[in-house]
Amino acid sequence: MVSLSLTHLHALKTHGLKQKDILSSGLLLRGYLHDIQRRGQGFLDLVHPSDVTKDIVSYAKKVRGSFEHIVVLGIGGSALGVTALMQALKPLSWNQIPASKRGGPQLHVLDNVDPELIANLDSILNYSKTLFVVISKSGTTPETVAQYLYYKKKMKKVAAGTSFKKHFVMVTDLEKGFLREEARREEFVNFPIPDNVGGRFSVLTAVGLLPAALIGIDISKLLKGASKGADRFLTTEIADNSAYQLAHAQYLLQQRYGVTTTVMMAYSSALYSVADWYRQLLAESIGKAVNREGKDVHTGLTPIKALGVTDQHSQVQLYNEGPYDKLILFLETKSFRSKVAIPSTGANERSFAFLSGVSFATLMHTEQLATQEALTAYDRPTANISLDRISEESLGELFVMLEGSIAFLGEMYGIDAYNQPGVELGKVLTKKMLLGSH
Amino acid sequence: MVSLSLTHLHALKTHGLKQKDILSSGLLLRGYLHDIQRRGQGFLDLVHPSDVTKDIVSYAKKVRGSFEHIVVLGIGGSALGVTALMQALKPLSWNQIPASKRGGPQLHVLDNVDPELIANLDSILNYSKTLFVVISKSGTTPETVAQYLYYKKKMKKVAAGTSFKKHFVMVTDLEKGFLREEARREEFVNFPIPDNVGGRFSVLTAVGLLPAALIGIDISKLLKGASKGADRFLTTEIADNSAYQLAHAQYLLQQRYGVTTTVMMAYSSALYSVADWYRQLLAESIGKAVNREGKDVHTGLTPIKALGVTDQHSQVQLYNEGPYDKLILFLETKSFRSKVAIPSTGANERSFAFLSGVSFATLMHTEQLATQEALTAYDRPTANISLDRISEESLGELFVMLEGSIAFLGEMYGIDAYNQPGVELGKVLTKKMLLGSH
Repeated sequence: MVSLSLTHLHALKTHGLKQKDILSSGLLLRGYLHDIQRRGQGFLDLVHPSDVTKDIVSYAKKVRGSFEHIVVLGIGGSALGVTALMQALKPLSWNQIPASKRGGPQLHVLDNVDPELIANLDSILNYSKTLFVVISKSGTTPETVAQYLYYKKKMKKVAAGTSFKKHFVMVTDLEKGFLREEARREEFVNFPIPDNVGGRFSVLTAVGLLPAALIGIDISKLLKGASKGADRFLTTEIADNSAYQLAHAQYLLQQRYGVTTTVMMAYSSALYSVADWYRQLLAESIGKAVNREGKDVHTGLTPIKALGVTDQHSQVQLYNEGPYDKLILFLETKSFRSKVAIPSTGANERSFAFLSGVSFATLMHTEQLATQEALTAYDRPTANISLDRISEESLGELFVMLEGSIAFLGEMYGIDAYNQPGVELGKVLTKKMLLGSH
Repeated sequence: MVSLSLTHLHALKTHGLKQKDILSSGLLLRGYLHDIQRRGQGFLDLVHPSDVTKDIVSYAKKVRGSFEHIVVLGIGGSALGVTALMQALKPLSWNQIPASKRGGPQLHVLDNVDPELIANLDSILNYSKTLFVVISKSGTTPETVAQYLYYKKKMKKVAAGTSFKKHFVMVTDLEKGFLREEARREEFVNFPIPDNVGGRFSVLTAVGLLPAALIGIDISKLLKGASKGADRFLTTEIADNSAYQLAHAQYLLQQRYGVTTTVMMAYSSALYSVADWYRQLLAESIGKAVNREGKDVHTGLTPIKALGVTDQHSQVQLYNEGPYDKLILFLETKSFRSKVAIPSTGANERSFAFLSGVSFATLMHTEQLATQEALTAYDRPTANISLDRISEESLGELFVMLEGSIAFLGEMYGIDAYNQPGVELGKVLTKKMLLGSH
């Protein structure tokens, strides 16, 4: 279960929001929901199990035990969701756990074209035991295509004849693009990405679900949680609609006080990569030059990912004392999957009496509470997203809640939250420069 | 070698700086240098080899081959420097490379108290082959003390009698604090941290140098580069003083255009953790409620770490089209340690002609150039820090250049760049809450 708390905002002297500020817009909520559904974006439809999810489960079952390494070739929305899922739902440092204890394949998400990254991965991979999951919605993403070409050539040397095709799976557009053509030509197993789902909203398509299933994550539970998230997103009762409340708080804080930055501060290492996933979602969706009327607006909320307690020793000085431009959004779990007691220092160490009988879990929770109280004392806006526990269900619900909040933000700002026109120029210039250098 | 380029700033229409803006303050530079040296901060003294660096080298030599795992217990400034060093100077995914190919111990930097992190690390460590490096300047950091108590108890069960003490090294204050007392009591090997060096400026003390040496990094070369950085920092010729130029650009962009955010965008996976290290340096040093006269100022430049090309698919939409509040500071290497060719798609794939004959290194460089050209076309401020190559020397020089730029920023803003009063309240509340819960 996922819950949102905005109560700390109510306690602030000069940069706060009252409960009535956040809840007093019932008619707007209905209109926004109507508009969002009218736009035909597919992210809400993904919460229902489909033939594709069935195929994913049976493919994952079929290849179980065949591979030691799963390598995702993908970037941006094709990489961030699965990374968040692995970090949250598998033991931390999964790839470093000895194979005998791990009980599942390593997962490497290759989301860059850095040659050093590629060269070093080669010292880890055993090609004959490696499955490449190639993910690109368009099927033409240059970075992913380049990686695919590299590993195709390598694999051709290792796996001859018909065994070659077992080492690749394609996740791409149903009809068009280079990867789709390759899937046909080489007879790769493949999974489609729906047309009306953008990359950053695609974690519940095969993009996220296939690699998740391959490392043993229960995707039916993920969808069950997501479905709950969708129900809550669609409720017209503001008091029950966390997605709306979060968006409204972010919007009002920006409009009233110039709070342009949302720091998602995870108090759980397992949830840290969710902040990375959210970083794309917020930045690309709301960072826009023009509104729906074509007027220059240069909107944007800048996402920052942070990690408790670690960043108390790095960023909290700035958050407490610096400019009043940040909302600190705590992402927390009410229960850790381990407790781990802190041993006593012994009777003569009075200065550490506060640690006596305390677990690491309690220390973590208490430091978060204290950090939030301190931020409140410094008159800094904070809010809490709480998972009752980290599970497939709560992750599914969380993804949809955050996607929903972004959809609401798009309506509040009157911008198109689903496009990304500002990245085209860089792509065009890259091609031009490379062709020019030949 | 490390160089700074601000030329892209000169080309901007509305948010730029001319060369004369940046260079026209020779007298100020002298005054700043004078003031910085007067404050008695020790980070510049660290660039010279000392007895401590000699002891580190001989200790690292002595224990070479004895351990499979080095575990650093430390947080904030006690963790970020060594993480940056490992990621830059050892092969990426170092810990995941099979031991037979790795040629050195794994290094785990445990910079959090998350119980799941601690529990999972236990499934990786072989205690009888593990060395714990316990780092805390005060010797009383609760997170690090709690970790130490945990591993001390575990190790007592594994390593009996005199062999126990071989598994711990302390890096802490020379005289006082719990860890110093423990070092005396248990006769641990130990290294001091100078009094006049703050945590975030301590990478070139034993804090960074000891773990670096333990995984085979040449710390004498690191200091050689640092020494070059210190010489350049102390030059009164603005045109030769990169640290000053960078600080001045950041300061002017903030004062003139409200550019409150510095995005350090590494175009190299190996350099990405340098951005994390810089994040603490900038945030804690410049995020201050009051200036040296005690007046409320709430200064601060918000650091963001980003990674090219990955974040082109996540953050660049916002950087190009969103609010005009960011300086994008590219951190780049002129040469990668691997090239890796991209195989051809074959003659009938005209749409990927631009990749033909291109290496991943060239693709990476070209995408960076194109991204910067696009940002410039969108009138966004950018600058470049370039390493001729990633090496001990260039890292050492880079650290000092960035530390120096922070020292200059402190003088420009008239604030104390070396304290962190804003983190005390959270610490006090944590202790109070934990004692209250007993």
